[in-house]
Amino acid sequence: MKKKLTLAILLAATATAALAGPIEENIRWRQSAYSFAAWNVQKIKSQVVDHPDTYNKDSVTAAANAIAAVANSGLGALYTEGSDQGIGWKQTRLKPEFFLKKDEVTKLANTFNEAANELAKVAATGDVNLIKTQFGKVGESCKACHDLIRIKE
Amino acid sequence: MKKKLTLAILLAATATAALAGPIEENIRWRQSAYSFAAWNVQKIKSQVVDHPDTYNKDSVTAAANAIAAVANSGLGALYTEGSDQGIGWKQTRLKPEFFLKKDEVTKLANTFNEAANELAKVAATGDVNLIKTQFGKVGESCKACHDLIRIKE
Repeated sequence: MKKKLTLAILLAATATAALAGPIEENIRWRQSAYSFAAWNVQKIKSQVVDHPDTYNKDSVTAAANAIAAVANSGLGALYTEGSDQGIGWKQTRLKPEFFLKKDEVTKLANTFNEAANELAKVAATGDVNLIKTQFGKVGESCKACHDLIRIKE
Repeated sequence: MKKKLTLAILLAATATAALAGPIEENIRWRQSAYSFAAWNVQKIKSQVVDHPDTYNKDSVTAAANAIAAVANSGLGALYTEGSDQGIGWKQTRLKPEFFLKKDEVTKLANTFNEAANELAKVAATGDVNLIKTQFGKVGESCKACHDLIRIKE
């Protein structure tokens, strides 16, 4: 019963969000892109850092390509004015400071792009030590941006 | 007030989902991946089909790479037993038939993979007519799978 109620509530809330304007859509695209990246980050972490005995070159390469594809996809276009407020799949965690720190954000975004594209290149070599080092750099670039413009959970 | 209430309800529902088991997580990864792909499909449709005057080679190439990255990311691993029921970002639309039609699904998934990888290649040439044709093939492969195993909205 509790599950059914939660489901009904979520569906109602989702329907509300779906009918909303483009800000909510932009937030949903952002959350989808970063979640897709996070899934792939998790795959690389598992195979390169936590359980290197499970390393699979094809899987890690595909995951690195996925992260690079997210980095290269032009996410900046989704950060429209006012999109620090709104519900995508859930309430956005974007800090209002984003819009006051655009130069800093651009610099961090470029660092992420370069690190992710380099990771895709390094992944294709199959050199696990190089992948691990470059994966660390991608993680640092993610964290720098999160610290600057994402509300902590 | 209505907005605040909806937000509170959605956050509560999301928190419930976040505490749930791996099926809900798998559904959320799936929905994120396909939503990220859909955003990129929309970009190509806009620049190649609806408003060809806005065509930008870099943007369409990045979008095609993003769709290919989704196709190559090993989504099959997320279709765990029982995941035709559950809430990711929202209730899954996977039909239970999925688990009875795995051979057919695999065939369609391979068609999608090949079509998406070919689109990424064709996008890099900048030949808009070729891109449009191949984009149509990707769309057909998406639709074939949706018709077979996705509940209509």
